[in-house]
Amino acid sequence: MKFVCSQSDLNNNLSLVSRVVPSRPEPPVLGNVLLVAKADTQKVSLTGFDGSLGISTSFNAEIIEEGAITLPAKLLNDIVSRLPEMEITLSVPEKDDDSENRAIVANLSSPSGKFELRGIEGSEFPELPVVSQGEAIALPVSLLLEGLRGCLFAASTELSKQILTGIHVKTQTQNSIPDNLEFAATDSHRLAVVETSIEKLDEESVEPLNLKNFAVTIPARALRELEKILATLPSSETVQLRFDDTQVIFELDDRCLTSLRLLGTYPAYEQLIPLQFARQMVVDRKRLVTSLELVAVLAQKNNIVKFSLDSKAGQLLLAVDAQDIGSAKESLPAEIIGEDIDIAFNIKYLMDGLKAMSATEIKMQLNEWNQPVIFTPLSGVKMTYLVMPVQIRN
Amino acid sequence: MKFVCSQSDLNNNLSLVSRVVPSRPEPPVLGNVLLVAKADTQKVSLTGFDGSLGISTSFNAEIIEEGAITLPAKLLNDIVSRLPEMEITLSVPEKDDDSENRAIVANLSSPSGKFELRGIEGSEFPELPVVSQGEAIALPVSLLLEGLRGCLFAASTELSKQILTGIHVKTQTQNSIPDNLEFAATDSHRLAVVETSIEKLDEESVEPLNLKNFAVTIPARALRELEKILATLPSSETVQLRFDDTQVIFELDDRCLTSLRLLGTYPAYEQLIPLQFARQMVVDRKRLVTSLELVAVLAQKNNIVKFSLDSKAGQLLLAVDAQDIGSAKESLPAEIIGEDIDIAFNIKYLMDGLKAMSATEIKMQLNEWNQPVIFTPLSGVKMTYLVMPVQIRN
Repeated sequence: MKFVCSQSDLNNNLSLVSRVVPSRPEPPVLGNVLLVAKADTQKVSLTGFDGSLGISTSFNAEIIEEGAITLPAKLLNDIVSRLPEMEITLSVPEKDDDSENRAIVANLSSPSGKFELRGIEGSEFPELPVVSQGEAIALPVSLLLEGLRGCLFAASTELSKQILTGIHVKTQTQNSIPDNLEFAATDSHRLAVVETSIEKLDEESVEPLNLKNFAVTIPARALRELEKILATLPSSETVQLRFDDTQVIFELDDRCLTSLRLLGTYPAYEQLIPLQFARQMVVDRKRLVTSLELVAVLAQKNNIVKFSLDSKAGQLLLAVDAQDIGSAKESLPAEIIGEDIDIAFNIKYLMDGLKAMSATEIKMQLNEWNQPVIFTPLSGVKMTYLVMPVQIRN
Repeated sequence: MKFVCSQSDLNNNLSLVSRVVPSRPEPPVLGNVLLVAKADTQKVSLTGFDGSLGISTSFNAEIIEEGAITLPAKLLNDIVSRLPEMEITLSVPEKDDDSENRAIVANLSSPSGKFELRGIEGSEFPELPVVSQGEAIALPVSLLLEGLRGCLFAASTELSKQILTGIHVKTQTQNSIPDNLEFAATDSHRLAVVETSIEKLDEESVEPLNLKNFAVTIPARALRELEKILATLPSSETVQLRFDDTQVIFELDDRCLTSLRLLGTYPAYEQLIPLQFARQMVVDRKRLVTSLELVAVLAQKNNIVKFSLDSKAGQLLLAVDAQDIGSAKESLPAEIIGEDIDIAFNIKYLMDGLKAMSATEIKMQLNEWNQPVIFTPLSGVKMTYLVMPVQIRN
């Protein structure tokens, strides 16, 4: 195996696939990156895999001799990222069959230096799962990014609630034709739902998207990696999504992200969202974030902030009380409809949701102090963020 | 006590003094910052102190009522740094002597909010040590910075070698008049010495510096803080240094840094520096740093790099050998005088010294593979960096 490529191509693609390489690989070969050089395409493909989540990518290179090898991901990444922007030659000498030394070594050479790295045979690297049956669904990058950014933060990180560590993606259907794609995440304390409009995109795109009905729960971890890849692409591109009973695969040009699906029934979250509200408040989003960051300094122990809605004064008062340390109060103008109320929240939950929105103003809708509260941005993405209030100590 | 000041003044000065506040203060009042408001000067002074190192600073404010209080440093800093750039009012209500509640509370108010913070009486904060006797020595900021930047990195961090955790600062005297100021630091594996020229500065400054003979060892920790303060000042300013048997004090306008001296005899480091060398090499400093960073990736275990000087080829070869993982070689052009030699170093020691220099080229002078090696920059600061080589495994 021998190929010549540019430092930047190898570096960019390595950083991409290295992200999924586990720190404690089992089997050990998963701590490596698989490099495959193919003469017919004159491309090198790189693959990283943790047994559940895999990313593969390929780039142009001058392939002098075909072959495959796996090399330690972190080490290779550390070396290549420090090399100057020049041509790199990677070669694996033919193994002498008589030799008792089974070690396989790759030579990496740049104009000023030479590295020898011990690898493992390419054949020992597991193949990434494929989805052979079923049609591909084309999803525009802009739509996927909008959905992911609006809900990834709300997925659970507790492995005991496995289905909640995923994002539920499904089509919403009217008259048997899906007219939007919905993304949802919840950790049982809060719920974020983003509705993206397919219709609008359909009009803009050259071909109709022909979206099929589907519903799938995908690990948030895989989608966070997908989000990072998508962020580097033009928003007009489309991504092919394929899935079968156990796998999902996202394909974008030379790149491919594969992940196990999360199995089990995703909670019927629509039922949790109240349809009627006794109260409503509109406030400036950035101002609310700034004020929350300020009072949060005093809320280090229980992280609870009390909202007092004062409709007559047109004012929202935030208060944090930390016994033994002190207290904090901030007020900001708000348009309030309904009776005055005191209601308390976990500051972190509020901040996560408010920061995921981009609108200038947000609307808060609520009933009583112990019932779910809905936050929605007044412009931009169609997002619904439900937060359960916490009990106020009196 | 009551004063009104700008958010930026309070914030900048708080960040400065908070840096020395210990995370586990003993007594607890040292976890606080002392704030003193004086009507005659219309200034607020802030003081942070860890029992050994103290910083005090003051800034203009509208003093409505004199007084003193100590407030939790981290909490106050976190709040003030998040407040908008507007006026802040800090007030401590008069205590009611009859009240059984002994808590002292400060009110901090900004246009949008109000904070209450529990404090401790100002009188419980220990006074910073003063040096009443002895003359002040005026040191130009530029000279101090040059000295500190060239040797702070080499001070020991092992508390068991207490005297080596300091920087030794002394005048070099000829004909009973000091003609330069020398800074030295060593952790017994390497030694950095910077000689700064007073003469040159004397010519430039309006008044002669009249430097007295002195030698003092100052904790590196205190000087790292001093370096940060100095970096914000114009290099033409001068700092007053005073010291007695136990304390050193640096005074700069409204700021003052005080520290215990390190007592004991500083090693006679001059004796360690060889005067004659059998070999010499000149290389590009940045190129050497880049090459070392590259091969260092493979040197993760023992951190050792081998230098092979090849005078005929005019080339320095760097080599790292990591069994089981691989090996790395880098070569760079070098002007070499003397017989070829292999010699090995701890990469970290080399990097620390090379990064503290700013010259384009550096000179390495050496005798045998097991004798001290000297690195000096070919331009800029007059710095001598001695590194002990390590034994090469053969």
